[in-house]
Amino acid sequence: MGVDINEELCRLINQGINPIPEEEGLEELIAQHGGKELVATSNFQDAAVCRTFIVIVPLFVDQSANPDFTIMEKALKSLGKILKKGDLVVLETTFPPGTTDGPVRSWLCQSSGLEKEDFSLAYSPERIMTGYSLSRLREFPKVIGGTDEESGQKAFQVYTRFIPNLHLVSSARVAEMIKVMEGCYRDVNVALANELLKIAKDMDIDFFEAREYANHQYCHIHLPSTGVGGHCIPVYPWFLIKEMEKQESFSHCRLLRTAREVNDEMIQYWAEEVLRQCLKIDKPLAKIKICIRGITFRACVKEFYHSRNMALARLLVQKGLDVYVSDPLQSPEEIAAKGLRFIEPEEADLIFDPFDLNFSRGREKTA
Amino acid sequence: MGVDINEELCRLINQGINPIPEEEGLEELIAQHGGKELVATSNFQDAAVCRTFIVIVPLFVDQSANPDFTIMEKALKSLGKILKKGDLVVLETTFPPGTTDGPVRSWLCQSSGLEKEDFSLAYSPERIMTGYSLSRLREFPKVIGGTDEESGQKAFQVYTRFIPNLHLVSSARVAEMIKVMEGCYRDVNVALANELLKIAKDMDIDFFEAREYANHQYCHIHLPSTGVGGHCIPVYPWFLIKEMEKQESFSHCRLLRTAREVNDEMIQYWAEEVLRQCLKIDKPLAKIKICIRGITFRACVKEFYHSRNMALARLLVQKGLDVYVSDPLQSPEEIAAKGLRFIEPEEADLIFDPFDLNFSRGREKTA
Repeated sequence: MGVDINEELCRLINQGINPIPEEEGLEELIAQHGGKELVATSNFQDAAVCRTFIVIVPLFVDQSANPDFTIMEKALKSLGKILKKGDLVVLETTFPPGTTDGPVRSWLCQSSGLEKEDFSLAYSPERIMTGYSLSRLREFPKVIGGTDEESGQKAFQVYTRFIPNLHLVSSARVAEMIKVMEGCYRDVNVALANELLKIAKDMDIDFFEAREYANHQYCHIHLPSTGVGGHCIPVYPWFLIKEMEKQESFSHCRLLRTAREVNDEMIQYWAEEVLRQCLKIDKPLAKIKICIRGITFRACVKEFYHSRNMALARLLVQKGLDVYVSDPLQSPEEIAAKGLRFIEPEEADLIFDPFDLNFSRGREKTA
Repeated sequence: MGVDINEELCRLINQGINPIPEEEGLEELIAQHGGKELVATSNFQDAAVCRTFIVIVPLFVDQSANPDFTIMEKALKSLGKILKKGDLVVLETTFPPGTTDGPVRSWLCQSSGLEKEDFSLAYSPERIMTGYSLSRLREFPKVIGGTDEESGQKAFQVYTRFIPNLHLVSSARVAEMIKVMEGCYRDVNVALANELLKIAKDMDIDFFEAREYANHQYCHIHLPSTGVGGHCIPVYPWFLIKEMEKQESFSHCRLLRTAREVNDEMIQYWAEEVLRQCLKIDKPLAKIKICIRGITFRACVKEFYHSRNMALARLLVQKGLDVYVSDPLQSPEEIAAKGLRFIEPEEADLIFDPFDLNFSRGREKTA
């Protein structure tokens, strides 16, 4: 049984229609099982017959980069109302370490009236990648940890039925840390790639050629970018940074903080690059039509949360430049709804593709 | 032919005796070829018959982290005296990008009286690892780049005779950058591991358990340490930082700088840990014999350059603690010569092993 507050989503699934077409292999599964073995509902009460609950509602951060548990608290309090003695709850949302055994447990106890020993509670971070969720579940290592030994064992027994590569770790807390650490590794290494890209440019060296031969089995220099967007990587380092600030261990999160800043400031660097390219075009700045080709945070994923590409477009607009946008996943109307202007790339003078960091000419070239 | 200013080294090689016993497989090679196919000499003039020169004398940095080219300049000016038209020179020492095509070429031209087009000049960074040099040469990818196309091609033809996995890149400059970038990747990732270790400790999480399951094909969290020592990793980021400072591009090297600081400050963290451990021992601080087991910069390598383990021992001495040292590669006399005191670890109250970051008890335990 699947529970989601989105009624339309539930309706589609129950009709055997895949609501997420970009997920490879999902269509066949939903067509086969939707409305039969897999029933979706917007009503938590319908799930009262279940004994195991896997929760993966999103966690956002507020303007100050503190986690905002509003949705999570609401979902867990709804779940609490149908929770019975002996049930198992497993969280999959990426959390600041300590959340499962702390606030999650409290909300469940409060809402259910159960004691902590009445139900099992564990944590197993999702490690899927949008577009590859099914193959990731089948192939990728997954970890699971309980808030106590019995919960861990019980959760492991359930998950091992559908996750081939599963590892039981010593606690929910460690499992939470594992996922956050992965995110920090990504963020810091993207920041390193971005910094090396800037240095290579300053030193008149082709970063991409150097990267190709620098990388080997012990060296994994990442790809540079306009920064890091989405709900995951730019958010997770803050879980640790905020905890260290709370403990007044400011010196224990300097690298994570610097990496966050380096990545977020990349739009300044690319804005400079856009201007440098504009200087090569024989027109006054104000007359150069600039097209940012892609405003989602990642190519092929229709998601804008903390999108640095959209932030770059807005920064250039603020600077008074003649900026337009095109996006393969966005209609001109959707772009307009975001306060940006659509253009066919070939109609622009300068096109910046933020996914391959490439500049090209539009109409001047074809003229 | 091998040229080295160390006469004793040359004498040993010519007698077929391996002067570097820790290099696996070297003994057999020196025994077979030393004094026969391989002749070592301290006199540059003896090498005048050669047409290809591979130079790998060390490059140090001064107190302000600027490269000190003294030895390099001397070696290249000696080489210049025997350099002939049509010869090939390949540098292997890790350099700030631009060095081969800049100062190296100048010194060779000055000393030889040749014009730049009279000889070929290329760069191929060594990627060996102390102790595994021979297997690395046989298996590891190696890059080579010329200061012009002909030099690159010529150097490639020579190297391809003894390097199976060789890649020609577009310039000596790119080849120089490749090696420096690798070092930056290591330094930043060790800093990340060190920072995550501190955070995990603050959050009461076993870093090593979390690391074990966080790592997979896309995640390579390194091992934490007392910092980064030796002639390589702590030095290379400075090549880029100093260049950015020269260009007043201060914001382009913030992550590299922070990583350097995080790594260098790890001895403060471990000093705190030593004190924390001392508090658990039922003796006044001044009476607790502390043993640092290992003062080389890396286990099994008798090298002290920028050794953070030695720096830690000295920091604790400065704080007035009763600090001793033991080291499997150092005699008590050698330790004394470094201004430190030797102890048999079991005679100490507290033993810190800086290579596996482990604390143990000495005589109290056995008493």
